[in-house]
Amino acid sequence: MVMTRKSLQNLECAVANTVETIGDAWTILVLRDAFLGVRRFDDFVSSLGVARNTLTDRLEKLVAAGMMQTRPYQDNPVRLEYRLTDKGRDLFDVLMTLWSFGERWNPPLREDHQRVIHADCGSEALAVTHCASCGGRLSRSSVTVEPVLPVVASRLAASTEREAHTMNQDASS
Amino acid sequence: MVMTRKSLQNLECAVANTVETIGDAWTILVLRDAFLGVRRFDDFVSSLGVARNTLTDRLEKLVAAGMMQTRPYQDNPVRLEYRLTDKGRDLFDVLMTLWSFGERWNPPLREDHQRVIHADCGSEALAVTHCASCGGRLSRSSVTVEPVLPVVASRLAASTEREAHTMNQDASS
Repeated sequence: MVMTRKSLQNLECAVANTVETIGDAWTILVLRDAFLGVRRFDDFVSSLGVARNTLTDRLEKLVAAGMMQTRPYQDNPVRLEYRLTDKGRDLFDVLMTLWSFGERWNPPLREDHQRVIHADCGSEALAVTHCASCGGRLSRSSVTVEPVLPVVASRLAASTEREAHTMNQDASS
Repeated sequence: MVMTRKSLQNLECAVANTVETIGDAWTILVLRDAFLGVRRFDDFVSSLGVARNTLTDRLEKLVAAGMMQTRPYQDNPVRLEYRLTDKGRDLFDVLMTLWSFGERWNPPLREDHQRVIHADCGSEALAVTHCASCGGRLSRSSVTVEPVLPVVASRLAASTEREAHTMNQDASS
């Protein structure tokens, strides 16, 4: 059951809509399916409608990056399944923010598209980030970077009142 | 002050270390700098050590995606600066989770690398995701996807006790 619906798939998944811009969509989709329990090569093909050579390439990269590992599930002939490693599972927060961003800005066009539900409250699970240390909400205005990039420091030092005004406008997040 | 230190830059930024695998590193780095206040083409070049044609390509894609917009800051000759749009600023949570993942799994080698600090508590801002609706922590075991992919449903239905055992092991996140 190999479906070839690459373009449609991109419309269906909010994550794909996002990472078409900021990353590699197939890699994210493979990770998404792995989180959903897909492990076998042919199941990834069926689920994603991805070309086999493309899937091979992305799985190899994920294994090389230590995010997935192979394990035989059949001996004769040997067949491998692909599982998330601890490192791969730690991408959960990244996937959730990508998914949430896509839901806000590139909602899938199909009415029956998949939704991620937060089981604890029953709402759609739209993710926001909190500080792992104090638990407070993270926002653009509540984080600082140190040391600041030299170019940013010089730009800020040279900023006129006009720039300061527009920057304050931008700082609202 | 154009620095050509592409490989070193990749070691310096935890975000770049991550998206080398799951996305386009230059796009993420441009977004990172935009969040830090960089707006002008030459400042991006100075900060990132990126080739000018590569930077042009990424900025054009970010503008086309509605994540950045241009604004003239000089009339004669006209010079444009690049600013985050509302959509671009909404990538904050994505950037924070990418950054945090990189800090955990691909920490930069340089001792003086930049750190993101949560100003409210003074700790390094390592991001975890919470539900925007109820505020509870999101985890792999607390979210469900509906409707479930057909391939996943059939896989789960066919799962043996052996599989159920290993899946329970995997579910710890």
